Amino acid sequence: GLLPESGERRGKAERLFRLMDGFRRNDPVSLQKDILDHVEFTVARSRFNFDDFEAYQALSHSIRDRLIERWHDTQQYFKRKDPKRLYFLSLEFLMGRSLSNSVINLGIRDNCADALNQLGFEFEVVAEQEGDGALGNGGLARLSACQMDSLATMDFPAWGYGLRYQYGLFRQVIFDGFQYEQPDYWLNFGNPWEIERVHVSYAVKFYGNVEEELLNGEKCKVWVPGEMVEAVAYDNPIPGYGTRNTINLRLWAAKPSDQHDMESFNTGDYINAVINRQGAETISSVLYPDDRSYQGKELRLKQQYFFVSASLQDIIRRFKDSHSNFDEFPDKVALQLNDTHPSLAIPEVMRILVDEEHLEWSRAWGIVCKLFSLTSHTVLPEGLEKVPVDLLGSLLPRHLQIIYDINFFFMEDLKKHFGLDYDRLSRMSIVEEGAVKSIRMANLSIVCCHTVNGVSRVHLELLKTRVFKDFYELWPQKFQFKTNGVTQRRWIVVSNPSLCSLISKWLGTEAWIRDVDLLLGLREHAANADLQQEWNMVRRVNKMRLAEYIETMSGIKVSPDAMFDVQTKRIHEYKRQLLNLLGIIHRYDCIKNMNMNERRKVVPRVCIIGGKAAPGYEIAKKIIKLCHAVGEKINNDSDVGDLLKLVFIPDYNVSVAELVIPGSDLSQHISTAGHEPSGTGSMKFLMNGCLLLATADGSTIEIIEEIGEDNMFTFGAKVHEVPALREKGSALTAPLQFARVVRMVRDGYFGFKDYFKSLCDALDGNGDFYLLGHDFGSYLEAQAEADKAFVDREKWTRMSILSTAGSGRFSSDRTIGEYAEKTWGIEPCRCPF
Amino acid sequence: GLLPESGERRGKAERLFRLMDGFRRNDPVSLQKDILDHVEFTVARSRFNFDDFEAYQALSHSIRDRLIERWHDTQQYFKRKDPKRLYFLSLEFLMGRSLSNSVINLGIRDNCADALNQLGFEFEVVAEQEGDGALGNGGLARLSACQMDSLATMDFPAWGYGLRYQYGLFRQVIFDGFQYEQPDYWLNFGNPWEIERVHVSYAVKFYGNVEEELLNGEKCKVWVPGEMVEAVAYDNPIPGYGTRNTINLRLWAAKPSDQHDMESFNTGDYINAVINRQGAETISSVLYPDDRSYQGKELRLKQQYFFVSASLQDIIRRFKDSHSNFDEFPDKVALQLNDTHPSLAIPEVMRILVDEEHLEWSRAWGIVCKLFSLTSHTVLPEGLEKVPVDLLGSLLPRHLQIIYDINFFFMEDLKKHFGLDYDRLSRMSIVEEGAVKSIRMANLSIVCCHTVNGVSRVHLELLKTRVFKDFYELWPQKFQFKTNGVTQRRWIVVSNPSLCSLISKWLGTEAWIRDVDLLLGLREHAANADLQQEWNMVRRVNKMRLAEYIETMSGIKVSPDAMFDVQTKRIHEYKRQLLNLLGIIHRYDCIKNMNMNERRKVVPRVCIIGGKAAPGYEIAKKIIKLCHAVGEKINNDSDVGDLLKLVFIPDYNVSVAELVIPGSDLSQHISTAGHEPSGTGSMKFLMNGCLLLATADGSTIEIIEEIGEDNMFTFGAKVHEVPALREKGSALTAPLQFARVVRMVRDGYFGFKDYFKSLCDALDGNGDFYLLGHDFGSYLEAQAEADKAFVDREKWTRMSILSTAGSGRFSSDRTIGEYAEKTWGIEPCRCPF
Ligand SMILES: Cc1ncc(COP(=O)(O)O)c(C=O)c1O
Ligand SMILES: Cc1ncc(COP(=O)(O)O)c(C=O)c1O
Repeated sequence: GLLPESGERRGKAERLFRLMDGFRRNDPVSLQKDILDHVEFTVARSRFNFDDFEAYQALSHSIRDRLIERWHDTQQYFKRKDPKRLYFLSLEFLMGRSLSNSVINLGIRDNCADALNQLGFEFEVVAEQEGDGALGNGGLARLSACQMDSLATMDFPAWGYGLRYQYGLFRQVIFDGFQYEQPDYWLNFGNPWEIERVHVSYAVKFYGNVEEELLNGEKCKVWVPGEMVEAVAYDNPIPGYGTRNTINLRLWAAKPSDQHDMESFNTGDYINAVINRQGAETISSVLYPDDRSYQGKELRLKQQYFFVSASLQDIIRRFKDSHSNFDEFPDKVALQLNDTHPSLAIPEVMRILVDEEHLEWSRAWGIVCKLFSLTSHTVLPEGLEKVPVDLLGSLLPRHLQIIYDINFFFMEDLKKHFGLDYDRLSRMSIVEEGAVKSIRMANLSIVCCHTVNGVSRVHLELLKTRVFKDFYELWPQKFQFKTNGVTQRRWIVVSNPSLCSLISKWLGTEAWIRDVDLLLGLREHAANADLQQEWNMVRRVNKMRLAEYIETMSGIKVSPDAMFDVQTKRIHEYKRQLLNLLGIIHRYDCIKNMNMNERRKVVPRVCIIGGKAAPGYEIAKKIIKLCHAVGEKINNDSDVGDLLKLVFIPDYNVSVAELVIPGSDLSQHISTAGHEPSGTGSMKFLMNGCLLLATADGSTIEIIEEIGEDNMFTFGAKVHEVPALREKGSALTAPLQFARVVRMVRDGYFGFKDYFKSLCDALDGNGDFYLLGHDFGSYLEAQAEADKAFVDREKWTRMSILSTAGSGRFSSDRTIGEYAEKTWGIEPCRCPF
Repeated sequence: GLLPESGERRGKAERLFRLMDGFRRNDPVSLQKDILDHVEFTVARSRFNFDDFEAYQALSHSIRDRLIERWHDTQQYFKRKDPKRLYFLSLEFLMGRSLSNSVINLGIRDNCADALNQLGFEFEVVAEQEGDGALGNGGLARLSACQMDSLATMDFPAWGYGLRYQYGLFRQVIFDGFQYEQPDYWLNFGNPWEIERVHVSYAVKFYGNVEEELLNGEKCKVWVPGEMVEAVAYDNPIPGYGTRNTINLRLWAAKPSDQHDMESFNTGDYINAVINRQGAETISSVLYPDDRSYQGKELRLKQQYFFVSASLQDIIRRFKDSHSNFDEFPDKVALQLNDTHPSLAIPEVMRILVDEEHLEWSRAWGIVCKLFSLTSHTVLPEGLEKVPVDLLGSLLPRHLQIIYDINFFFMEDLKKHFGLDYDRLSRMSIVEEGAVKSIRMANLSIVCCHTVNGVSRVHLELLKTRVFKDFYELWPQKFQFKTNGVTQRRWIVVSNPSLCSLISKWLGTEAWIRDVDLLLGLREHAANADLQQEWNMVRRVNKMRLAEYIETMSGIKVSPDAMFDVQTKRIHEYKRQLLNLLGIIHRYDCIKNMNMNERRKVVPRVCIIGGKAAPGYEIAKKIIKLCHAVGEKINNDSDVGDLLKLVFIPDYNVSVAELVIPGSDLSQHISTAGHEPSGTGSMKFLMNGCLLLATADGSTIEIIEEIGEDNMFTFGAKVHEVPALREKGSALTAPLQFARVVRMVRDGYFGFKDYFKSLCDALDGNGDFYLLGHDFGSYLEAQAEADKAFVDREKWTRMSILSTAGSGRFSSDRTIGEYAEKTWGIEPCRCPF
């Protein structure tokens, strides 16, 4: 593609290039032209006849064009400036929908709406056509997505790397109150938000064995793989808000390798040989649906290495494009491990430096130790990733050797430091002996990372004092925390546009969208009657929208006058949806026992629960069923009417969250203290002026500090009390009401007596590991307080405004700012307009 | 997507629609803009920096836009006019490349070349970036492609239906002279020539069982499937030449079914459940690489039914869009079966009419009998498709019942007609008894089709007198023939542009490109010295291009002064590449035994062989190895030098053919008489002025009639002589030279003695089924004649011109015209400009 040499033709071509080098215009008429062109030529429909989905496709492709322009300019600018870059490695990114977010970050939402309007379409209806990109499970994955938005908006030279699962997180379907899992065919109707890079692909090796070779008289190891799979790049542009910067999320898909077909087949069974090879695609085909553990599955390990290997080949190729000395590598590259899932990157970089670039071990190790930082999302030692040595040795024989070598040197150092404290050595060793000899991925990571981050202040405490105690004693300087955050762009601007306008109006600026501390400015207006009135109006419209959704989903009519009390998040014992349900049963029981007069004083509630259970997590599935069984009873009890409803919202995901959160009055974050590393759901509710009912756990502790205990409803045992309470075991007493509601379930009051038996058993004395019984009394008190506050409209509204006002600290912009400065050492690199 | 109701906004929108309703412009500057836009937004590269492949992608997308415009207009026109439509059902379409063909049929090749040129690219180099669409094996598949081109050009309202194999025909790679098969990853780099129709999809059912239901008091059968797979449509626009008409080739890809997930999973093993379901894609993943038989493979049967079921759902939906009475179905629809591969369409239509539309059996049968026509491509009874009853009954239980019912009524009719002639009944029965009870797909087809076509005159004779003798006696009126043809658009205009210009110049018109009989006009100039000189010049340039290709592929330098003697086609015993090789050995042996003087008189030859062997076809693979072994000997023998070269061209496919054919002097079509149903390769060589050396077999017989025996070199036993010759067995004598060359192979003169033994054994007396020995003498004579003619330059050139002049009868335009009139009953339907 070089320009012609000769003068005249070259001039012509140059003129031509110049002629076309204007950006796509964003006025409504230009947008309409682009939309219609995409209808005709990309969607290949008639411009005279297309439906909402086709309008969605065409608009999205028009936006994609604009993203591509910015993506290119940004990447070229980064290339020219050559700053230190951050590479964010994560096996999960829960992006949700892209259309609304993109047009808002590009600043062209209104023009798009006008353009559609003039073609006879409604922006909101068109945007509803999009399916969620659900390449993740829950908190960890959505955090990655929020952080990508902040990285882009704050102009950091960063890229994300992940896996392009063909099937995202399963769809949750409820039949008869039970959860069923359906594959998420999210790519079946095309994905305009990704750019397929057919020529950016790398071979990823598996299996085989390690041989020794002589190179210039030196022995070196050569990994001779038994299988090759090709990783093909798909780029997802991530536009910043209020900046031209558009960064990249590069996801890898597995394809059969073709370059390496030299041992091609000459088999009788050609057909089956092809089909087997096709099986390579399985590696990126499905996301593991468990958000806590994946111990010892070969496919999972393959996914991890596949994504790590492709990403590092890409990163190192880019580094070598303009650098030749690997000692500079840590000056140009920061590698962030989102939990230990990508921790095979550590032995992989060692392998590349030592075996392929032929650096000495100690020089390579020096480099590697400056590259990596880890963020842990675990609170329990049982939750830490372990990989059986047999599995690792067969899939990645050279990596196992390298890990052994790393461990050998580490153990030698430890002995120097602590002497022959074998207990400590065996606790800290990367290799766990035992029935199944395993590699401890966390230990590997901590040994190599320059920084280990917790996701909230209390989480760091737990890491220091429990999970990684030994390591903290050795390397206290490695341990930091960065409280998680969420992006106000998606969680206010996109999902709650009327609140967004209201905030801007009262702050007199939209600057808070990039500079979130400005939200504090709302505090001075919190008691202002005008603001309060407008605030309630916005919230009521959102509640009505949610009520409508509930009715179409479940047929249940709920009144927007009631308090919308929401608990939506993955179903887990430690998150205690069961506590919520027992509280609802208690409330129901109380109402049933009231006379008419008493009933008149009850604050009407709509209890909303939503969340997915991991397919193999039986207890979580029983909790879902119990929710339906209790709802069935309550919702059909004419005695109760509007005083109490219980609704389960199926298939909770990002776009459902965008609808539910702005419509909630109260939200529950009631994990047993010490179990939630951070929690980010709470922050989204907070931003939207929803009051929290919460235990002092994870980031909630910091939220309490920020907005004050009297602006929310807290209860329950504290983190430091929990171990002692558990010690007490069956000596721990629970209130009588607790026994009563558990007995109702046990006795079959809601049916399915046998099925629920194990749930009830787990709440008895010794068994009540999550302290539902202990916390039940204070939980009911907190709920009663909430009822009291709700009837005091002025007070409630003030609390609501103060929640939003205090939410700025929980923006991912703040989180990313801290990471950039304290962990990654990167600086903004802003592409000029 | 309706226009807004209200006056003002509606007016605005209408103006807008009008504003944009211009076609894409085809001047070079507009084309350049489009190319650059596609570089930036579709390929997502920088417009300042893209390579030849990206230029190919961008240009192709620009052409695709133009195809889409025409495709839409054509389909809307068809819809409005509602003519009888032809649906061409074929499991294979060998399209080759699309770019050059498209720009030529659109009439914008020169503008595209200019546009690229001004951007610094060469059209030829860019076009070379395209990979072949190789969704077929050989003759039958390429015939489908040629016929699609004719159907479009002749404005017929026709669609093709087929399968979108993810892997086309294997790539042939030669190591050490042996064939290896590599999967053809043709879609890995994207395919701009198809339009994915994510919303055009149908569920295809498999397995399960048949139940009886009562409907309005009538019993009817309901097939309850055990498995569902989704068929998604991919449309490939086929532009006609010199017309706006652009017809459709709709190919189906298999996807896991999502609509029918109601029995979705609630399994412990979610991951494996998803991966298993994913396996549905296997159905369309790979083309069977055997061009003659696929007996009894379940996957093949699945492919057949998958494609038939999706196509018929689509055809019937379209019919029902504007018709309600199925008696009109045969007035609006003709269904062409390309060989018996799609013959499950017969019981499928019966099933739909009877079980789903609730027509009575006899009414349904009356309709079905007016719908279908079959073209047979088989000459040997052993080549006919059979499906084991067990397999069919398990995969398609209802279809087996219907086939039994059809057969029952047919047998009853036969008994009325012929009496109780049990031999005849058992020969004609659709069900074959025996060790493996099977369904005879040919019998099924003949019973139901209104017309059975042979592919050449002699082929029809063989059908009548041997393969389908019984059926011919019953229904003589069903049997017709349409000699195959090839499209001069691809085989002259696209692949031999200089010859194309030369022809137009001498005919004074380009009209022959649509009206191929005009080629006869060349006859009067055949002896014209000016034409001869220009003719030879064109041919020499083509030979030089081929010589260059040979050198880069194989490192062998060949002289364009030599006669290029080519045999390229699938490797088969009956096609007798072995006869060719033995002739070459003989020629080599002769040269070796000559003195210098004698050698000086030898006409130098470059013998070129190319073609793929089916992966399981051992003898064919040995022939390939023999070719390499002989070549190795000859090409390295300095005694021989330029007098004789033997080159194997690997991976023969359509685009290799486009290069080889225009550069050939002599081409061999030397099947044992009675074995080649038609042969179409010969026609392409003929069109390009290459002389034929051929047996009187298949369409060659008609070629001889058309251009005269003295304009080609014929030899060998005739069709009617072959059976008697075979009777003679070992009494048949072969010339001494034959025994000598076979002995050279047998004795290891070319190495690999053991490996070639079975090849030699098969040539001994009784074993010489394909009569190589018998024909060897006359083969050598024909070759000697060719040598003699070659040195008479004027004569050879005249023969060459007369070959092209006489090739018009072998255009697929003629074939399609006959089918339209005599078999399908369709009329042109020309979309106005
Ligand atoms: C779809 C989805 N799932 C899970 C979560 C995590 O919620 P929590 O931190 O409350 O567990 C979020 C965060 O808001 C989310 O949007
Ligand atoms: C690639 C390819 N293979 C096979 C054939 C069939 O050749 P023949 O009819 O000589 O067997 C053709 C027709 O030209 C072809 O183009």
